[in-house]
Amino acid sequence: MFITVEGVEGAGKSTCLSYIGTYLKSAGYDPLLTREPGGTPLGEAVRGLLLGDDYAGMSSDTELLLMFAARAEHWASVISPAICAGRVVVSDRFTDATYAYQGGGRGIDPARISALEQWVLGEQRPDLTLLLDLPPEVGRERAARRGAPDRFEKERQAFFDRVRGCYLERARRYPDRIRIVDASQPLDAVQAQIGEVLREQILERGVL
Amino acid sequence: MFITVEGVEGAGKSTCLSYIGTYLKSAGYDPLLTREPGGTPLGEAVRGLLLGDDYAGMSSDTELLLMFAARAEHWASVISPAICAGRVVVSDRFTDATYAYQGGGRGIDPARISALEQWVLGEQRPDLTLLLDLPPEVGRERAARRGAPDRFEKERQAFFDRVRGCYLERARRYPDRIRIVDASQPLDAVQAQIGEVLREQILERGVL
Repeated sequence: MFITVEGVEGAGKSTCLSYIGTYLKSAGYDPLLTREPGGTPLGEAVRGLLLGDDYAGMSSDTELLLMFAARAEHWASVISPAICAGRVVVSDRFTDATYAYQGGGRGIDPARISALEQWVLGEQRPDLTLLLDLPPEVGRERAARRGAPDRFEKERQAFFDRVRGCYLERARRYPDRIRIVDASQPLDAVQAQIGEVLREQILERGVL
Repeated sequence: MFITVEGVEGAGKSTCLSYIGTYLKSAGYDPLLTREPGGTPLGEAVRGLLLGDDYAGMSSDTELLLMFAARAEHWASVISPAICAGRVVVSDRFTDATYAYQGGGRGIDPARISALEQWVLGEQRPDLTLLLDLPPEVGRERAARRGAPDRFEKERQAFFDRVRGCYLERARRYPDRIRIVDASQPLDAVQAQIGEVLREQILERGVL
């Protein structure tokens, strides 16, 4: 089983990822927690190129190819082997983030993203995606308390509105896979929603 | 006009690139000499990831996406603007090298390379490619004199035979674009061949 967690900055993805890990362990699973862009030594190096200021003027095509290069490595060396070994993999971001940020945010034609998704993953997709949804201005306020913003966090309000819009549109399009979690609520209420979705999935599938 | 120079290690590409630059200057052009993977600050950083030993176990998909990420940046920020400004661009390696090394050498399906080539470049291709051809063992002997080999140079003989075979096959397939230069000859004879091709192209086109 492959679970992804998505949402704008400050939605609480990291905290929720830990919660999901703890939840799955207590349910008897051996979850592997990972993140994108990154998840491998090479992916982390590529993440450095993407998020730093040194190459901030890179073309949108370049950005997209680097994202998918890191993803290909993550898939081949971490996610796919773990799934094959029967583990539950939980990733902080995956391809939905590319549609939201590069597609919705930067205005790249989703057909171009889809072509690379197909090239890298074929028909393979996450089994479950938790979309931590909240107004971007609330998320940014939370994220600002964490310290200096990275290249993506410096984008303007309209950018994040488009990112959120794209995430929600994808949730409407793939209702069986993408479950919306109201992340504007207090942390314990957010975790209760996530626990509910996981419980339901475990019951439904018998096993994750 | 966009000229590329291709060939296995030790074929003399760097020397020939300088020669082409000098030749074009003396013919009244303002050539821009560049190289792949690299050609931009981001591309050089990606080149470091590709050629170093730190990430030598990367998947072939990852390698290919990184190559094309560097190429997309090179194209968008260097090659295309220079061509639009009327300059002659000469690149040490371009997409033919990807077909030869990743396709021929590593056995990646050329259709997968072609899909990325199309994604990045659309219908745009070099106008002229000089393929410096020589038996790979001769090239390796020359390259060995230059110092420690990079990750690609450490490949075995059979790998370079496949690389050369792929280059020659592409030259047969695109005879109008790819011109074979016998690089096993002494340097002055190699440069004479290159001068001949350039002279012919200038005469044929009136202008490069």
